[in-house]
Amino acid sequence: MPATYDIGSVAVEIKRSDFMIKSNVTSSSVVNAAIERYQYLVEHEFFESPYNFNEDAVKTSGFLFALEVNVQSAQDVFDLETDESYTLDVPVEGKAVINAATPFGAVRGLETFSQLVSANSGRKVVRDAPVKIIDAPKFRHRGVLLDTSRNFYHVDAILRTLDAMAYNKLNVLHWHVVDAFSWPIESKVHPELTEKGAYSPDMRYSYAEIKKIITYAKNRAIRVMPEFDMPGHTFVVGEAHPEIMSCLNKQPNWDKFAAEPPSGQLNIADPRALTFAFDIISEYSRLFIDLGFHVGGSSLNLDCWREDPIVENYVREHPGESVESLVRGWFMQTFTKVGEMGKIPFAWEESVLNFNYTAKNTTVLQAWVNEDSVGKLVDLGYRVVASPWTRYYLDCGHGSWVSNFEGGSWCDLFKDWKTIYSYNPLTNITDPAKQKLVLGGEIALWSAQSDEATVDRYLWPRASAFAETMWSGTIDPATNATRDTVKAAPRLTEHRFRMVARGIMAEPLQPLWCVRHPESCVRPSQP
Amino acid sequence: MPATYDIGSVAVEIKRSDFMIKSNVTSSSVVNAAIERYQYLVEHEFFESPYNFNEDAVKTSGFLFALEVNVQSAQDVFDLETDESYTLDVPVEGKAVINAATPFGAVRGLETFSQLVSANSGRKVVRDAPVKIIDAPKFRHRGVLLDTSRNFYHVDAILRTLDAMAYNKLNVLHWHVVDAFSWPIESKVHPELTEKGAYSPDMRYSYAEIKKIITYAKNRAIRVMPEFDMPGHTFVVGEAHPEIMSCLNKQPNWDKFAAEPPSGQLNIADPRALTFAFDIISEYSRLFIDLGFHVGGSSLNLDCWREDPIVENYVREHPGESVESLVRGWFMQTFTKVGEMGKIPFAWEESVLNFNYTAKNTTVLQAWVNEDSVGKLVDLGYRVVASPWTRYYLDCGHGSWVSNFEGGSWCDLFKDWKTIYSYNPLTNITDPAKQKLVLGGEIALWSAQSDEATVDRYLWPRASAFAETMWSGTIDPATNATRDTVKAAPRLTEHRFRMVARGIMAEPLQPLWCVRHPESCVRPSQP
Repeated sequence: MPATYDIGSVAVEIKRSDFMIKSNVTSSSVVNAAIERYQYLVEHEFFESPYNFNEDAVKTSGFLFALEVNVQSAQDVFDLETDESYTLDVPVEGKAVINAATPFGAVRGLETFSQLVSANSGRKVVRDAPVKIIDAPKFRHRGVLLDTSRNFYHVDAILRTLDAMAYNKLNVLHWHVVDAFSWPIESKVHPELTEKGAYSPDMRYSYAEIKKIITYAKNRAIRVMPEFDMPGHTFVVGEAHPEIMSCLNKQPNWDKFAAEPPSGQLNIADPRALTFAFDIISEYSRLFIDLGFHVGGSSLNLDCWREDPIVENYVREHPGESVESLVRGWFMQTFTKVGEMGKIPFAWEESVLNFNYTAKNTTVLQAWVNEDSVGKLVDLGYRVVASPWTRYYLDCGHGSWVSNFEGGSWCDLFKDWKTIYSYNPLTNITDPAKQKLVLGGEIALWSAQSDEATVDRYLWPRASAFAETMWSGTIDPATNATRDTVKAAPRLTEHRFRMVARGIMAEPLQPLWCVRHPESCVRPSQP
Repeated sequence: MPATYDIGSVAVEIKRSDFMIKSNVTSSSVVNAAIERYQYLVEHEFFESPYNFNEDAVKTSGFLFALEVNVQSAQDVFDLETDESYTLDVPVEGKAVINAATPFGAVRGLETFSQLVSANSGRKVVRDAPVKIIDAPKFRHRGVLLDTSRNFYHVDAILRTLDAMAYNKLNVLHWHVVDAFSWPIESKVHPELTEKGAYSPDMRYSYAEIKKIITYAKNRAIRVMPEFDMPGHTFVVGEAHPEIMSCLNKQPNWDKFAAEPPSGQLNIADPRALTFAFDIISEYSRLFIDLGFHVGGSSLNLDCWREDPIVENYVREHPGESVESLVRGWFMQTFTKVGEMGKIPFAWEESVLNFNYTAKNTTVLQAWVNEDSVGKLVDLGYRVVASPWTRYYLDCGHGSWVSNFEGGSWCDLFKDWKTIYSYNPLTNITDPAKQKLVLGGEIALWSAQSDEATVDRYLWPRASAFAETMWSGTIDPATNATRDTVKAAPRLTEHRFRMVARGIMAEPLQPLWCVRHPESCVRPSQP
């Protein structure tokens, strides 16, 4: 749903034999790559909407023979200030026009154009010409978190996910690249991490592959922000460096030391652990060109450290110090290190909320613990990315993954698209200055029960519902109320079918009959 | 897990260049087709277990150069008495041997053999020779219910599902071919049903396609039992024949007349509706060669009929008659009709339990309402197929599919593999004669939120967990207790990876680290 649009009722045919997409700028690799992609798509995609499968030929007014893409600046740095706005005009015949301030706005406009086109009786048509769209995103950080540590995803699954993100105008891949379970990424500084921590020689990301992913993403107007979650969630570091770990793989009572097995946290009292963290930040903030670098900080277990002899000893020998003060020190030093590398530190909310101190407010905090966290954090002056598990954790509702029988998952229920779509990160935040601190949101796929065989279905189309709220906001300007799921369902479903046609195995949301009769598949409100 | 097995610790290599599978019988098309499939698989499948990805070459004792398949009878009718037992011997070198009473037992033995083979360092090996397996299923009816009405599945998705069923020794595809939403199957007697009721011309099963599916299934030792659910769940019949329907698509208060929209039930007081049902039974019991014919009978809404003028009138004019007596009459007549066509009638439990009469005990009833239903039905002398929604409804836990926001699905939670695996259909049934009435079970995929894009992931590997309980029983004979999920997890996961390698996009169940360290991913019991 664009910010504003006007449509007509005239069908215009794409003159496929010589339809051309052209731009005024030729020096932007982002624009050039986008034109190539959408030129291909307009020629080859034959998508029929579920509302008019096998429909007879519609009457067309004439031909559309070109799409002109006017970009004001070929400068192609993508950061938090980047302008993604565009306008799109599709006349009843002749030439369509996109105007955009930046290459990234042009990418968004091209995607919108591609979604106006559908197949009809062997032709390709825009059904609702003339179309006039003036569009810009509501939120500047619209992300998907993908965890590649619990289970591995080969590069092609990540590239396919970037394609799908572009189909949904999402702009950040938050790559939760390592966690307790495996270390799939090459390290030139600490090659032993990958050697001992990758699941197999075939389950690694090389530097070359990561650069390929970053470029592929940038060409789709997507930032790739890595997360190296520390000091918790780090069991796998202990495979190579047990000497810098606390509570390493305590069994069978791992639950005293971690939310999930295997337990293990970097030893916050050991200077070698902090040196290790600095190594990681240095190496990977060079490899990943993004403005942000996420240092994790979630789900720390203080008992893990309280029972560690090195920590115990340190605290005994340093009056005034405690496990909590060590944690504070850890975060302040790692945030500072990220800043020294020229990056914005990102971290999970607990890193500041649970340890009673004030980080520099350049730090961006990711809220997930509950739906009030966003408000708490902006009240403290932080910029925030919203990821409440109650709404955005796509892995939830698949049962517990421990091997013994114990029923549901901690984050039941399954987050269906309406639960996602009905959430507004700005709830209860009325001060416009504070609203501006909410950069956006991230939907998350933690991979205990997902891998490349299932990634499409976990993400799509639920992440599309999220994407619309991030791009257009959750409030319908016409009614000033939360957008209506009954009205959103048909466009979400059409988009789902389009994604399937583009090779993304997205889930269906309803019987096709309901897709075609949306007002007939509504539960009456109870008296 | 076979009924009984003995393994050694010697690896033997398959001599791929000239490994041959041969049978003593050449006249069974089932055996011939199976040999062709497994010959191909043994040559082309290069599956590496997740436990030993990229493992160095293991020492092998010698070569296995042939597999001999001895079948006592080439007779290939597959019914409820069919013997699926087999024995399999794999020596440390030479020739492996399968002995089976029937072609269908041979199919099972071949599948087992294929699962003993894995890749190692460019070769294919059986790692645990000598192997001696004596095997037979615990239950004779081990099914998957697939609903192709709420959403459509093209033939290739059904064939792929049959492949996967064969990998899991499941033997019944309960094809819930029509329901309220669409009528995807060709009818020669009532072509108007498909004309008006299929979702699109491309979303239909022709007679030729159905015959292809039946043959494909039979070659994999799978029966295809169709269900034509009547008199409820029949809205789509009203698209062609509104004159024989009651409460057709009542809106917006459909919930007074149906569990889900659109409402509509065949008019049990109108003789034309019964004639219609007879037409359906006649036509399709000829097309589907299976021994069983399922006439549905679930989720009837009596208010639908109570407010129907024809029903009201009938009851007024026939003292002693009621909506309930009309329903009883409907079932008795349709069950009889199925019997006259030479078939065993199958129906949902409510068809007898809710209407206070006794059907002929040749009728097989499918229990789904709760876990006590199986016991109730065998106490009444019926044969039973167990499908409790609390365990076997794989579609559950995806949120409600109506378009307005209302949280979870009626059958939350998601049925995870341990929930499925821990269910024993024989619970509380101690009399061996009554135990024998429990023919088996069916796991169900209702398709409101599934179609061919997602079928693999909905079914597998959860249906594999079900399959093991159906083949081997839920009780471990060694301990006389319910089989341990911690011990089952690694074999289920290995099988999941094998299915993925065979093109079935099954879900992962755990982080791969847990797969490799099963005893480390167990939640400690609380004190």
